[in-house]
Amino acid sequence: MHNPWDERFAQRTQAMKASAIRELLKLSSKPGYISFGGGFPAPEVFPVETFRQACDTVLQVNGQTALQYGVTEGVLELREMIAQRSNRYGMNVSPENVLVTSGSQQALDLIGKIFINRGDRILVESPTYLGALQAWNAYGAQYISVPSDENGMMTEHLETALQQKPKFIYVLPNFQNPTGVTISLERRKRIVELANQYGVFIVEDDPYGQLRFEGEHLPAVEVLDCQMRNSPDVYDGNVLYLGTFSKIMAPGLRLAWIIAPREVIHKMSLAKQGTDLHTSTFSQYVACEVGKGDFLDQHIKKICQVYRERRDVMLEALEEHFPRGIQWTHPQGGLFLWVTLPPGMNARKVLEESVKEKVVIIPGDSFFPNGGGENTMRLNFSNATPQMINEGIHRLGHVLHKMMQ
Amino acid sequence: MHNPWDERFAQRTQAMKASAIRELLKLSSKPGYISFGGGFPAPEVFPVETFRQACDTVLQVNGQTALQYGVTEGVLELREMIAQRSNRYGMNVSPENVLVTSGSQQALDLIGKIFINRGDRILVESPTYLGALQAWNAYGAQYISVPSDENGMMTEHLETALQQKPKFIYVLPNFQNPTGVTISLERRKRIVELANQYGVFIVEDDPYGQLRFEGEHLPAVEVLDCQMRNSPDVYDGNVLYLGTFSKIMAPGLRLAWIIAPREVIHKMSLAKQGTDLHTSTFSQYVACEVGKGDFLDQHIKKICQVYRERRDVMLEALEEHFPRGIQWTHPQGGLFLWVTLPPGMNARKVLEESVKEKVVIIPGDSFFPNGGGENTMRLNFSNATPQMINEGIHRLGHVLHKMMQ
Repeated sequence: MHNPWDERFAQRTQAMKASAIRELLKLSSKPGYISFGGGFPAPEVFPVETFRQACDTVLQVNGQTALQYGVTEGVLELREMIAQRSNRYGMNVSPENVLVTSGSQQALDLIGKIFINRGDRILVESPTYLGALQAWNAYGAQYISVPSDENGMMTEHLETALQQKPKFIYVLPNFQNPTGVTISLERRKRIVELANQYGVFIVEDDPYGQLRFEGEHLPAVEVLDCQMRNSPDVYDGNVLYLGTFSKIMAPGLRLAWIIAPREVIHKMSLAKQGTDLHTSTFSQYVACEVGKGDFLDQHIKKICQVYRERRDVMLEALEEHFPRGIQWTHPQGGLFLWVTLPPGMNARKVLEESVKEKVVIIPGDSFFPNGGGENTMRLNFSNATPQMINEGIHRLGHVLHKMMQ
Repeated sequence: MHNPWDERFAQRTQAMKASAIRELLKLSSKPGYISFGGGFPAPEVFPVETFRQACDTVLQVNGQTALQYGVTEGVLELREMIAQRSNRYGMNVSPENVLVTSGSQQALDLIGKIFINRGDRILVESPTYLGALQAWNAYGAQYISVPSDENGMMTEHLETALQQKPKFIYVLPNFQNPTGVTISLERRKRIVELANQYGVFIVEDDPYGQLRFEGEHLPAVEVLDCQMRNSPDVYDGNVLYLGTFSKIMAPGLRLAWIIAPREVIHKMSLAKQGTDLHTSTFSQYVACEVGKGDFLDQHIKKICQVYRERRDVMLEALEEHFPRGIQWTHPQGGLFLWVTLPPGMNARKVLEESVKEKVVIIPGDSFFPNGGGENTMRLNFSNATPQMINEGIHRLGHVLHKMMQ
């Protein structure tokens, strides 16, 4: 039957495809399934009781303000907290460099909205975060991909890529989604240096930076960029930095932030006004309350302990159950690791088979904006319990053994 | 000094202007000011204690789920509640016709994202809601304006306007923002009839529909559209209907919804995935809990009582303190009334003078997408107390007497 809506939708909607990942998440929540698919935190570590007390306090002390409209930039107290926490890691920013967003996904969307003209090229690691591609496809972005290895973006290919005049460089330096890989200090410095040399700015997406299980904290790309300048009082550098409370408090709040020069924060606030007016005032007040004192630092330590154990269980299970000829990354933090199957194997077929065994994985090809990666897959180790991880990798190994016979 | 960001921003940002209204809100919150400027609900009627109990229950019963990621379409329980409440007013929709949005502003943004190609014309009442213009300007919309009188959009001009091939018709039928005017039943029917005849769909924005102080409830444009069809089991009509919890619960939650045919909900969910993944799970669970039983119906009665008194106080004060030659609307509900000054007077100058007396109003010209309305202004009566309303109108009358001497 003729559907009148089809011809009404705008041209840009042709680039909006149903995400295989989101559709699979629905399957993952069925009983009996073991999911390595989504990027869900472990619900067992959500500080539910702390939230309950925080809601109580906020509503008793600031109820009317917390339930009222707020300013687009975000609740000042929260922006101060974000600036202070960031400055502990070597940044030099004030609340006017901070815009609170409805999750990092909104920061990605707003970046698209204020920067991307149809046909603009974005320089990305390959593979890269699927959510960024989804956000920017709607603005007609195209992509220049630079391959990555176990030390992140291979900067020896960066200069050639920059000569294709990208609008900006997008990197996830810590425990990248999807690979779990961290960009080395030398490469971070090289990215900052070349970006400045070519007059191209950097979008640094860092949802997992605080979830380091081992090894030394590496300075953010933004911090390295600051060090190259005469650190002004108000941040005025070449990097837009994205952080989030989703992985260190709870994703259900939809609370994240962007740190950027004031001109960018101003333009982005205008865009946000037209997009959702402002982020939930109540969520912001609750996050302020939860973040008081040293609770958050203690809580992050707890999350790291839990995730480190799960990563270790997964790595051991991979060693034990996976056939020879398969490789995987060894992340020092975060939520994911990345599996490379022998050339010629197709991870979408692995998913077809593994679903029969009630195990869900994400085929890696969606993370490559310009094709490739058919023999790769992403495994999440934060959501399932150690016992389920062991069982799931066991079943997955069985599937792979059969397929590789 | 040369600012490198200026030349990096996308073309569409040229249509993003700092909203005079949002900037004035900052002034309004200063002590001693009386604001008729914003569209803020009365904070005194927020059901703070009910929220406190609801947060407590949600976190005790569903804590882990309420703090976790959720599906883009929204929490099923909330979509069921929205569908049920809508069907009490003659709609015939199921949860799959409902998408939960981060405030109605996001619904407006997503409508722009999935429907508006640069240069598309949107048919609007003149004046119309400023937030819709802000959302759609970013997608390069242009506007065909149809004038309105005390019965809303003057449908005798609608057919000529439809011949200019608009993408859709945008109306706020109940207690419109900014005028407070309600579209009569006859005109609603005529809009539905002509829209169907010309194959143009309707966006019906109804944030205030439940806040009726007097007179008969009029059926929604969507309901009239349904009545023209053989009401199918799942809504499949020509109207996208926008509702919100901002005015009947609390705006700080940023919780609203759109009701539409399934094809539109599907496309809009895809767009929302790339925009903010989903609306706060926690806010959605809290709204479900607050909305249980008949609390919301009782609470709406209370809000109507409070706002009716404030409207009455404002209308009496206008009669008493405003000079002859000024006209205003008599809204039967909602948050706003609309003042028309004598021709040749400029409301921006009124604002300049009234601010010196610490009274804030909104000049009406921003609500006219194609110019005009310099001698009009919007007054909000929901936010200030009756005493402040009386005092503020007194001061404003004084300003106007001086200007009209």
